This record gives sequence, structure tokens and C-alpha cells, in this order.
Amino acid sequence: MKVHGKPMRSIWLAPDAQAAEAIDQTRLPHALVSVRLTTLDEAAHAIRSMLVRGAPLIGATAAYGVWLALRADASDGALEHALAVLRGTRPTAVNLHWALDDMRQLLAPLPPAERVAAALRRAEAISDEDVAINRAIGAHGLKLLEDAWMRKGRQGRLEVLTHCNAGWLATVDFGTALSPIYQAHDAGIPVHVWVDETRPRNQGAQLTAWELGQHGVPHTVIADNVGGHLMQHGQVDLCIVGTDRTTAQGDVANKIGTYLKALAAKDNGVPFYVALPSPTIDWTLRDGVREIPIEQRDGTELSDVTGRLASGEVATVRITPEGSPAANYAFDVTPARLVTALITERGVCPASHDGLLSLFPERRGRAE
Amino acid sequence: MKVHGKPMRSIWLAPDAQAAEAIDQTRLPHALVSVRLTTLDEAAHAIRSMLVRGAPLIGATAAYGVWLALRADASDGALEHALAVLRGTRPTAVNLHWALDDMRQLLAPLPPAERVAAALRRAEAISDEDVAINRAIGAHGLKLLEDAWMRKGRQGRLEVLTHCNAGWLATVDFGTALSPIYQAHDAGIPVHVWVDETRPRNQGAQLTAWELGQHGVPHTVIADNVGGHLMQHGQVDLCIVGTDRTTAQGDVANKIGTYLKALAAKDNGVPFYVALPSPTIDWTLRDGVREIPIEQRDGTELSDVTGRLASGEVATVRITPEGSPAANYAFDVTPARLVTALITERGVCPASHDGLLSLFPERRGRAE
Repeated sequence: MKVHGKPMRSIWLAPDAQAAEAIDQTRLPHALVSVRLTTLDEAAHAIRSMLVRGAPLIGATAAYGVWLALRADASDGALEHALAVLRGTRPTAVNLHWALDDMRQLLAPLPPAERVAAALRRAEAISDEDVAINRAIGAHGLKLLEDAWMRKGRQGRLEVLTHCNAGWLATVDFGTALSPIYQAHDAGIPVHVWVDETRPRNQGAQLTAWELGQHGVPHTVIADNVGGHLMQHGQVDLCIVGTDRTTAQGDVANKIGTYLKALAAKDNGVPFYVALPSPTIDWTLRDGVREIPIEQRDGTELSDVTGRLASGEVATVRITPEGSPAANYAFDVTPARLVTALITERGVCPASHDGLLSLFPERRGRAE
Repeated sequence: MKVHGKPMRSIWLAPDAQAAEAIDQTRLPHALVSVRLTTLDEAAHAIRSMLVRGAPLIGATAAYGVWLALRADASDGALEHALAVLRGTRPTAVNLHWALDDMRQLLAPLPPAERVAAALRRAEAISDEDVAINRAIGAHGLKLLEDAWMRKGRQGRLEVLTHCNAGWLATVDFGTALSPIYQAHDAGIPVHVWVDETRPRNQGAQLTAWELGQHGVPHTVIADNVGGHLMQHGQVDLCIVGTDRTTAQGDVANKIGTYLKALAAKDNGVPFYVALPSPTIDWTLRDGVREIPIEQRDGTELSDVTGRLASGEVATVRITPEGSPAANYAFDVTPARLVTALITERGVCPASHDGLLSLFPERRGRAE
């Protein structure tokens, strides 16, 4: 999507083809800075420290990370080491495992001398596939937004609530949840987005607000606490969020707090959609609440807040009292019963095993 | 309750009896500073700017504000002016109106020369009554916590979640929602409190964590997004919150986000209690979602976050991008159907009109 009027992706091959480059998302919205990833360790650090984040982008970055590792050492041992290091960076996003399994399947049978070029080609292909998938998610989701706009009699604004960042910054381009919103905006539907701040890392306030603003989509940042009140008062026409892992029966792991918004949507009859590229589906899992591992991150992500001082300088302040511990669960699971529909690159389906199989029939009868 | 080991209230008559003094809650937890209120305008400013906040404390501060106004001018006109100014400071807390109506009823019939002394006596009495009410709420709530602790087989910790600050800082002393928690802790029940950060003003992270820490109650600060996940995983035994206004049928206005926690509690079978002094009941209202006015405050409360720099200096940082607007709804309404029980100074009752009438039979048959 566009930044200062120019198209940009969240990760790309460096012009000298010796590294990957990515936007350092920890610096947004205060500064637009890219980081050069030249080694396995730099790629792993970028994922672990959330310079890059969002399930699809984590997958693409991990693929580049395998390539970077093989440039230094293309042996079997180095390949296995790289896969293990990258697999350990983040526990919840399933795209990470999907991308690494894909790379291993391609690369392990090849002679070491052929691995580097093949790894780069595949990393580039994974990125391009993500872009194509997200464009298709946008097209399918657009129909839901058009329907909602018609139901509203094309009056006022189409009010959409989103949580966290499932925009182009969370993917290679276009985004998942925001892709239909961008397409609706570009098609002339007067969309307005309620942007959940998304504590503790503020991905909504810092990333979603920034990318919507860059593209010119009207939006308002709200505290995570507000969505229920807005839904009670008819100020939300629909919710769309992304997901880091979806089970075979349609349970959805996404940024912590998603479950609370889904409960409010259900209680107020507001449609709650989840947009997902199919690599986000974990066909091996059923019960998301019981089976999906939820990452716990450092409590300082909650206690310490970064922003701009009046001087423009970026600074970090601590908001909690000395001696008060903070806990930081990164994701929660929204049960399928609260999800109105899933939006995938193949179309829209009910959040259920049958629903998913209707779009992915090749999975039918497969032992998972 | 205790601060640095010494008992303290949130508001008190200055030693020279020429002013009221209150803790400036906008400075906590970074600095413990009291502010001297000598005029009507200073009292109104303290309420409007949230140097003092919490429905019961707002009521007490307003009563002192009437006294301060009358010290300058005890005429009928000055009394009416003071009541109007104070009534306009915050729209949601019903205690404010209750305290002002109480002051007017007492003072209007008196000759101006007697009003100043009477106003001070009544402001002091309102403060003392609040303390007595909160002590009684704590005693009734303690039984619920003891029952929960027994049901848990007295194993591990009793896990309580609270939202915002309904502690002694929100009242004159003891608090409403935290009063049973303090009593349980003092009685030897190993209570642990999950403290919702409470965006956008962080009253949980800044005030509840601070006062629990000062009293030695184990607690952990969490993002407002986390409670649902904890309840899904059995890590919350019960929720207790306060309220700014409760309708005659038991709908509860409280800090924005309370409704989301009540939905999660219902979805997971976790008891959800609301602690309230009876002046918080608005007997004139039924349907809280439709009838309770919800205050909207400045968006900078969301976009700008105050805390301590590593140097110890207190600073404010902006977290949103330039050009992204922020909306700031201060309260939401939790329908009575989501509330397990109300805890009042007269005992515990169902969140319903019949429930409230069982404790306040003098209200039966009254035209509201």
C-alpha cells in the first residue's frame, strides 16, 4: 500500500540482493525506518523483538531467514539449525511453522550447492503468494462490506471496528482484515474504522491508525475498553479482525482482547468476521482454547509506554508503581460460536469444520 | 487505608479549618501530593480535571465545594450558583447530584448566617457516612469472598479481577469494590488481584495497583484485553467492580470496559459482583443503556500517556500518529442480566428492582 504516496511492502529483497529489508515496526508511527537483515540471527531477532510482526509477515520473514542462514552455511546441519532457531522465535503464529515446513520440504532434498538460490526463490514466492492471497481476501470481504452498506440504505458511514493490526504491515502487502476495508474505501464506500488501541503494544494506535491515515481511510482511535459501548449504541456495523492461528473447527487465536470484542458483537447482533490466509489454518487442532499455546511476553511491554515527547523526541515512560508486577498474555482464543464467518482467499465460509472443508475440500478425510 | 504505614483518607478538612485538602490523584503513582481547595472554583476544577475521582469521592468533594462557596458568599444566589457549577462538573456519577441535593435541602431553609457552619458539618458528615458505608460493604462482600475461598477448598490463592479504581482513593476511605478485598486480606485469605490497567486514564495501573501495594495486597497489573483469556482458563474466581450509577432495575454504569468483563464472566461462569453505596443508586432510572448519560472526555487522555522516564522525571508522550483522531467514552453500562449480585451497605441482593427493594423497602411504591 502507499506511504507518502509511494507503494511500499513490509519486507523486500535488498537492491544488492545480499539481504532482506523490512520496515522496523517498533519505530512506527514516530519514524519510518527500515532494517537490513543479513544473517539468521538478525532475522530471528527481528521476529522475536517484533520489528516485524503479524502472522503472514512472520512467515515471510522466516523464509528469508532460512535463505540468510544458508548463505553462510548450506549444510544439512545448518539448515536444521536455522529451522530450529526460527521455530523458537514466536509460539502462536502457525504461518511460521507453515513457512518453515515448506522451506524444509523444498530444500532438504537438494544438494547444498543449490540450496541458496532455491531458498531465495521460495522466500520471494512466499511473499508474492501472500500478496495474492490478501488481494483475494479483500475481494471476498468487499462483498460483505457492500452488503452491509446496502443494508444500511447507503446512509451515513459504514462503521467497522478492528482490533490490533491485520493490515499490510502484518502481511507483505494489502493486509488481511484491512484488505476488504481498503478495497471498500477505494470503491467509494464511506468506510470509517474504529481502531482499537490494542494494549499492551498499541499496534492499533501505532500501526493500524498510521497505515489507514497514509491511505486516507477515515478512522478514530479508541481504547480497547470502548467497543462494547459502541456496539450497544448501534455505532458499529461490523467487526473484522485477523488471526494468528485458526483451528480446523474455526476457533481463532488472535491478539489478546479479540475474544472480548467477539462477545460484545454476539451480545449486540453485530457481525464478527475473521479474515485469514489459509496458511493460518492449523488443520491439526480442534479446540482452540485448550490446544493453542498462548505466548506470554515480558511485563515491561505493559508497564513501559513509548511515544513522542512534545519536543518530538521518542521516549519511554513507566506507568505502573514501583513494585507492582505486570503480566502480558499476547493472544486469546475466540471460539467459533462467536464468529459470524471466516474470510479466506477462496471465499467466505461459516466458522466450522464443515465450513472450512467446503472451501478446502482437499482436506476432507485427511488424517491430521 | 495506609500509606507508608500511616492511615490516610482521600479528602480531609485542612488543619487550619480554612480549606479542604485532597490527594492529587493525577500525580499518582509517581508522586504523593495533596492539593488545598479553598474556593468553589478550585473544588469544581478538582472534580472536572479528575484530581479527585470516583463517584463517592466526587460527592464528598462537591459537599466541601458548597461549603467553600458559602464561605465567600452565603446568599441564596451564591448557593444556587455553587450547586449549578458543581452539578456541571461530571455528568455520569449520581452521587454528585445526591450530595448536592442533600446540601440544598439542608442549607436553603437556613438563614445565610448559619449556612457556612452547617455546610461544613454536613460535608464532614457525608465523608464520615461514606466511610461507614464502605466498611459495611466490605463486611458483606467479605462473606462472598469467604464462600468462594471455601468452594475452592482453600487451595492456592483466591483470584479476584477488578476494573478501574473502586478503592479507598475513589471514596473517602476503604473503597467499594476493594473494601471486601482489604477485609479478606486482613482476615488471612490469600487474595491475589488481577488489576485491569483501565485505559485511557490507567486508574488501575496507577491507582489500584498503588493502593493495593501500599496495603501489601498481592496483585498483578494486566492489560484490559486480558481478563477474558484468564477467565477462559479458570484463573479468575470472581470479579468485583464499583459503579458510578446504578438504575432501579440494577443496570450498572461504571468505567468504560466493565461491560466487556461482565460478558466474559457470564460466558465462563465466573461470578460478577458490583459493590455500591446506596447513594449510587438512581431510583429514577430503569434502562441504563438507554437512560444513563455517558461522558465523553478529551481524546488526548487516550493519545497522551504520562509516566516516569528512566531519570525519574514525569513526562507525557503521544502514542498515536499525527492526524489520527481519538474518541474517549468514559463509562459504559453493564445490563443487570450480567451482574451476579449487588453488594451494598445493607447487604447483598440480586441485580434487579425486586432485589434492591428487598434491601431498601422504604423505596417500595414510591413514585420516582
